Amino acid sequence: MAFDGDDTLWHNETRFNLTQSALRDLIRRHVPDADVDSELAEVEKRNLGLYGYGVKAFTLSMLETAIQVTKGRIPTADLEVILGWGKRMLGEPTELLDGVEDALRDAGSRYELLLITKGDLFDQESKLARSGLADMFSGIEILSEKNVETYRAVLRRRGIDPNEFVMVGNSLRSDIAPVVALGARGVHVPYPLTWAHEQVPEDSLPREGWHRLASITQLGALLETL
Amino acid sequence: MAFDGDDTLWHNETRFNLTQSALRDLIRRHVPDADVDSELAEVEKRNLGLYGYGVKAFTLSMLETAIQVTKGRIPTADLEVILGWGKRMLGEPTELLDGVEDALRDAGSRYELLLITKGDLFDQESKLARSGLADMFSGIEILSEKNVETYRAVLRRRGIDPNEFVMVGNSLRSDIAPVVALGARGVHVPYPLTWAHEQVPEDSLPREGWHRLASITQLGALLETL
Repeated sequence: MAFDGDDTLWHNETRFNLTQSALRDLIRRHVPDADVDSELAEVEKRNLGLYGYGVKAFTLSMLETAIQVTKGRIPTADLEVILGWGKRMLGEPTELLDGVEDALRDAGSRYELLLITKGDLFDQESKLARSGLADMFSGIEILSEKNVETYRAVLRRRGIDPNEFVMVGNSLRSDIAPVVALGARGVHVPYPLTWAHEQVPEDSLPREGWHRLASITQLGALLETL
Repeated sequence: MAFDGDDTLWHNETRFNLTQSALRDLIRRHVPDADVDSELAEVEKRNLGLYGYGVKAFTLSMLETAIQVTKGRIPTADLEVILGWGKRMLGEPTELLDGVEDALRDAGSRYELLLITKGDLFDQESKLARSGLADMFSGIEILSEKNVETYRAVLRRRGIDPNEFVMVGNSLRSDIAPVVALGARGVHVPYPLTWAHEQVPEDSLPREGWHRLASITQLGALLETL
């Protein structure tokens, strides 16, 4: 049984959203009618193939967006502020979602637990260390992308039969769709915020092979029925 | 048998050095007597615990250095240039060192080969994909840091006896010292440039347990004698 990290075990999108909101204010001081969110989303999408995911990629894309939207008129002092936001995000404590520790302890008494996250290796390892949860997992996999191929490689490498594998996560695109395609089971626990890049239309998923919980605190009850 | 990637199989430090030299010129246009190399080294060292290794970390540290050394007087346009350097580095083709393909093919006929690199997950995977070498390895390990603990974890996870393990790499600190400490064997193939952070005094290493080659083309002959 495997768990995603960001927005499944600990808050993540919230810290990105707060920073993005500060970026909006900062840029609008120079270009009052700027559509910062759309511009940033476009820059991030364009950079995804070069930068991958994570706070460092986000910081570089924020800097680029600030320069692009203001046509280079943003002063150096403001760019220094953005650099500082990135550092603050990287150093923030890992804030667990409610009920995570109990849910993991309960699941760990029945299954062997893996953590399967994607994103920046260094940042993810650091967040896990600060979470205090590392000892609950028998293995950690940090992937640069979560798709059918990368999940298949993990299961093969670890000798796990997809029929006996359950993945718990907040992203339909990264945690549920690929494992269901492999014949494994998904448990979707939505987070209040979803990054635009992670959104998929729900009717693109098969009807079978996955469950949805309102909260990770309901996981124990679901496991009783599986 | 495992190989390091950066500066063992493909050129890496060279591209960092070229960019750093361009940064020196750029900053000195504003502060003619600036000691850019020392300032950058200090910023990188200070940021290592937050950023880890890799081009994105290097780019963020270059930006910070440029702002710091010029006391914020560097114009936004120059910072945009630095952002562009980072992107160029990330997109550059992976340039193999001489003799690497033959050496890997030869070693692969006798041993199972692993790639064990450290640094930015996304960038390392991308470089490996562009190198054309991925198929030669039966496994890939990208670590956030190479030390006794992380090597021990890899060997344990893969069920490899340290006595039967050989690590080939250019860094005494990251590729040789930790594996020799584990009772495995190291093969040091120096690269003409070594990042300051990777330098260790040679007499801090044990005398036994490792070999030095002038070039990876000599690996076959060494393997004959092991």
